[in-house]
Amino acid sequence: MFELGVVYRNITRADRMAVDELARFGASTVHEAQGRVGLLKPYMRPIYPGARIAGTAVTVLMHPGDNWMMHVVAEQIQPGDIVVAAITAECTDGYFGDLLATSFRARGALGLVIDAGCRDVRDLTDMGFPVWSRAVSSKGTIKATLGSVNIPVVCAGMSVNPGDAIVADDDGVVVVPKANVRQVADAAAAREANEGEKRAKLAAGVLGLDMYKMREPLAKAGLRYVD
Amino acid sequence: MFELGVVYRNITRADRMAVDELARFGASTVHEAQGRVGLLKPYMRPIYPGARIAGTAVTVLMHPGDNWMMHVVAEQIQPGDIVVAAITAECTDGYFGDLLATSFRARGALGLVIDAGCRDVRDLTDMGFPVWSRAVSSKGTIKATLGSVNIPVVCAGMSVNPGDAIVADDDGVVVVPKANVRQVADAAAAREANEGEKRAKLAAGVLGLDMYKMREPLAKAGLRYVD
Amino acid sequence: MFELGVVYRNITRADRMAVDELARFGASTVHEAQGRVGLLKPYMRPIYPGARIAGTAVTVLMHPGDNWMMHVVAEQIQPGDIVVAAITAECTDGYFGDLLATSFRARGALGLVIDAGCRDVRDLTDMGFPVWSRAVSSKGTIKATLGSVNIPVVCAGMSVNPGDAIVADDDGVVVVPKANVRQVADAAAAREANEGEKRAKLAAGVLGLDMYKMREPLAKAGLRYVD
Amino acid sequence: MFELGVVYRNITRADRMAVDELARFGASTVHEAQGRVGLLKPYMRPIYPGARIAGTAVTVLMHPGDNWMMHVVAEQIQPGDIVVAAITAECTDGYFGDLLATSFRARGALGLVIDAGCRDVRDLTDMGFPVWSRAVSSKGTIKATLGSVNIPVVCAGMSVNPGDAIVADDDGVVVVPKANVRQVADAAAAREANEGEKRAKLAAGVLGLDMYKMREPLAKAGLRYVD
Amino acid sequence: MFELGVVYRNITRADRMAVDELARFGASTVHEAQGRVGLLKPYMRPIYPGARIAGTAVTVLMHPGDNWMMHVVAEQIQPGDIVVAAITAECTDGYFGDLLATSFRARGALGLVIDAGCRDVRDLTDMGFPVWSRAVSSKGTIKATLGSVNIPVVCAGMSVNPGDAIVADDDGVVVVPKANVRQVADAAAAREANEGEKRAKLAAGVLGLDMYKMREPLAKAGLRYVD
Amino acid sequence: MFELGVVYRNITRADRMAVDELARFGASTVHEAQGRVGLLKPYMRPIYPGARIAGTAVTVLMHPGDNWMMHVVAEQIQPGDIVVAAITAECTDGYFGDLLATSFRARGALGLVIDAGCRDVRDLTDMGFPVWSRAVSSKGTIKATLGSVNIPVVCAGMSVNPGDAIVADDDGVVVVPKANVRQVADAAAAREANEGEKRAKLAAGVLGLDMYKMREPLAKAGLRYVD
Repeated sequence: MFELGVVYRNITRADRMAVDELARFGASTVHEAQGRVGLLKPYMRPIYPGARIAGTAVTVLMHPGDNWMMHVVAEQIQPGDIVVAAITAECTDGYFGDLLATSFRARGALGLVIDAGCRDVRDLTDMGFPVWSRAVSSKGTIKATLGSVNIPVVCAGMSVNPGDAIVADDDGVVVVPKANVRQVADAAAAREANEGEKRAKLAAGVLGLDMYKMREPLAKAGLRYVD
Repeated sequence: MFELGVVYRNITRADRMAVDELARFGASTVHEAQGRVGLLKPYMRPIYPGARIAGTAVTVLMHPGDNWMMHVVAEQIQPGDIVVAAITAECTDGYFGDLLATSFRARGALGLVIDAGCRDVRDLTDMGFPVWSRAVSSKGTIKATLGSVNIPVVCAGMSVNPGDAIVADDDGVVVVPKANVRQVADAAAAREANEGEKRAKLAAGVLGLDMYKMREPLAKAGLRYVD
Repeated sequence: MFELGVVYRNITRADRMAVDELARFGASTVHEAQGRVGLLKPYMRPIYPGARIAGTAVTVLMHPGDNWMMHVVAEQIQPGDIVVAAITAECTDGYFGDLLATSFRARGALGLVIDAGCRDVRDLTDMGFPVWSRAVSSKGTIKATLGSVNIPVVCAGMSVNPGDAIVADDDGVVVVPKANVRQVADAAAAREANEGEKRAKLAAGVLGLDMYKMREPLAKAGLRYVD
Repeated sequence: MFELGVVYRNITRADRMAVDELARFGASTVHEAQGRVGLLKPYMRPIYPGARIAGTAVTVLMHPGDNWMMHVVAEQIQPGDIVVAAITAECTDGYFGDLLATSFRARGALGLVIDAGCRDVRDLTDMGFPVWSRAVSSKGTIKATLGSVNIPVVCAGMSVNPGDAIVADDDGVVVVPKANVRQVADAAAAREANEGEKRAKLAAGVLGLDMYKMREPLAKAGLRYVD
Repeated sequence: MFELGVVYRNITRADRMAVDELARFGASTVHEAQGRVGLLKPYMRPIYPGARIAGTAVTVLMHPGDNWMMHVVAEQIQPGDIVVAAITAECTDGYFGDLLATSFRARGALGLVIDAGCRDVRDLTDMGFPVWSRAVSSKGTIKATLGSVNIPVVCAGMSVNPGDAIVADDDGVVVVPKANVRQVADAAAAREANEGEKRAKLAAGVLGLDMYKMREPLAKAGLRYVD
Repeated sequence: MFELGVVYRNITRADRMAVDELARFGASTVHEAQGRVGLLKPYMRPIYPGARIAGTAVTVLMHPGDNWMMHVVAEQIQPGDIVVAAITAECTDGYFGDLLATSFRARGALGLVIDAGCRDVRDLTDMGFPVWSRAVSSKGTIKATLGSVNIPVVCAGMSVNPGDAIVADDDGVVVVPKANVRQVADAAAAREANEGEKRAKLAAGVLGLDMYKMREPLAKAGLRYVD
């Protein structure tokens, strides 16, 4: 958290195959599958609807109003990465726009998660480069002070370590520690295995009360019906 | 407000025909027509643009982080109902997703109004099942404690009684007490009756100052023009 | 700020040709080009995505919950104007809907920037009349108290003088004082002149680190790499 | 909620003796004693520390920026009452100052709970007239529109009926429906009965783990200790 | 607003005698006396209760996280001044502590109004140097970029010109344009002239309804009483 | 972050002597001394003014609305510790009151830092047991689900490891990683060494501009004075 001016070049990334599986499930299922932990605060919103990505985190810590390290982190991106940007204090400035997106994409980045602002959202939407941010703001930044790349950061209230898996879609952004990715992918797959069957039953009018056998525990808990 | 663990099965619903008329006018006109009262706080936003519904409220009160009663309320839904969900404390957790939406729709629900979070918004958008919520969040809930169904609730700062009419669209969510629905529908119709004519005049360049005869009262109130 | 009940009819507007050029660059480039000042607070959001306008400000100051002056300002609109509405206290009421939009458009207004709420957003979207506001709300307003038109106002934390240029798009709303518009338009054009070349380089994988020659200053500032 | 322009003169107040007992326990104990419901949102804060009151609610509903009804409600105050003021939309204006406090006190009011702003806080502090509010603001109000007195209101997210008991102290504001006051007072007394003994044990170093016999259920739930 | 890197040394200050009178009335009375305008947003709070000051504004505009100009403004302070500090973007950093307060006081400053954070609040309280701020924060600032001194600024949503009168107490912060100070002081004095008499009447149980002769207008507006 | 249901009994605490020195300097000086990092978000406020403590962190992670682990963490407290409580989602419930404070104090705790609510603030003030929290709330919690003790947590946006030093006072809460405490204490002492001399100079009217020799760099940066 407190190491400034350092770039870690060699990080261990979560297993790519397992990460790719996570994208299929999306943030909500993955969050559920790892025990309802790992969600960034819900103020993190996508700049356009419909994107769903899963990748490995390269992290960057910056100061308020200064995006110099964005150029430093660009060099550390590998295909399949998602950049996770944290700021040392609350800030809504627009750290990221279409030029940086062009560079990030050229390096293979799938998207950006930033606990600050983003700009050029029309261009980013046209490019199909997804960003999850706390704000949209035209306010640009300077390039004057050092931060760090690939150190553990706190982003939107959640610890993220370089190499962790990130899953982001319209529902939000979830972190899966790299050691857990395979296990979480399997748990997510298991959760989804019988969803189709459940959906069909519910669509046919079967109640969750019956499908999940809730009537007895509800009665036991004291629920009473009044006509 | 304080009765927990009870489900009222027989509620009186607002007159269906009048409720259906409200849908045509939308939230803003209905709000105006009943004297500018009944609006839920404007932090209640639709998860996708363009939906407009009017229906009768079935209410559910739940605890933070616990959506057990969602399955209980599902059974009480009748075609044309809108579920209005209140929580006993502020919470942004995702109480509702595509499986519950499938069940609610099978029962005939038109949509959900919830003073908490919602998830699976991509699926809900694809289904065309509209939700008005205070947040979007992947964070799931548990099923452990009792709340109540069809008791009076406070949702987003507004009292809602079971059977009241709810009108929701891109402008927000409005409650119309069931006893007033016919009268409000008529008032809304009256408001809209000459809107077309007004719109035509304004589009032709006639000023509201003249159309509404405001120049004299403005002058009387002391308005002065400086060249 | 403190002059109530006055309408200034003759205002000097920023040079139209220069203002039109600003529209091409958008809010973020213009903000940058004038030295990173002039941005309204980022809570000001467009009611629908994709609009981009630049025009000259006609200002209106109103009281909470009272939109009477909206009809007064309508008469002062000239083609190419953008109405900038400030309120004497924080308010989210819906001051503006489709009828006023019809009138504003008939007078030649390009859009509205309001530090309060807006309603009829579906109709406004269908009309293609863009609004930047702090809220969407069905809550209507009364017509009882005087404000002023074309006095200097503070809107969303920024001073706006009548006749100033306003640039608004998905990134936010920027004010350019009328005396600076030509100079800012030129600076914006200069900024964009070589953007295409930069974008091509970045897309080809050239790093900003090299393109902007940042490696030496970063090393000088003490950045170190750890393998 | 929707009845404007009415003053109910005869209301049934909660049993005075039971209400007086509630003051001894304070908001947190009373909230607990009635099953953890009835708390106004925690943004309601006292204007000075140290006050603790319990009384019967006389309610008033007002419009944003208009405190005319404050004078109407004053006449309905009886000794031991607490005025509960709700506003039809969010507002931080200063509805209440030292003159009104002088009048309220002369009528026997114990304090004010208002979901808006308050002013003259130095004078109110000197007078020892406690107010719980969402804001402090110099901004005065006008006297132009009717609201209602002694109708059910929603104040800071909670339904309050005229005559209900209100308990307010440094921890917040709690409503007890008038029918439950005796029972809640007894439950609160029971809760406190053995608090002294518990406090003594804990002060002597006994752990809650042992005093409340939590070790077994914790182990059962799966808690494990790592040395 | 947009002039950076400039210090205006010669400013015209509001009439000292009239400013001194304002201190006696406090923020709420002064706000009322000038027609309910000029209040900074109510998030501006004093760091300790009980202070009441009135002085002339020396203004300073700074960038987020940079308090270099605080030392520049110190030299421009004259006895009886209040420093009004605005920031070019939202920031809660602690720009001001006990060393700067020592310097400001030595120059004759009465206090500070800052739309950012403040620190060393215990020391400032002990010194009796009052500050109104939007936050308290230990986070220090750097000294790297230029702002301006004694230009017009927007502070907490309100325009302040150098030399304007500032009145600040527990109720908030009010600006009085320098040209209006005498007139506002007289209006405030007139308001207070008969407050003592009113207070005595209200304390004796006379109702505002009668003292202000409100019963007739209320009845005319349609108020009805129900027994 | 993700390990639930575990209590680490043996943690390494920061050097006591160095921690004790930190208390003398307070949060702002310590924050500055470690390079302006480590501050918890400024919404963390003390429940009463004037407390200043420094201690070693024992951490606890809990779920929204559930304080069961508070009793578990109590057993792990050693004299000189400060409990740092994080919640898995945003919550303002009152997790902590006078009984727990009695127990914590008996174990030797100096105070509590909690990213949620606190209650019984009058009693805690009378006891002199300081708490820094995001809210005050009467709303109690249940005891139903496991969290963890002495794992790394994110509290109010900042990573805290068990055994780290915590410094808290009226200015906020700062974390010092245990490995840095001696070095930070020395840096803080060095910062304060000549503060007395500086204060005396400033009090005598010497300007920071001269004392810190800023005139030349300001001129170099382009500052100009206008008479």
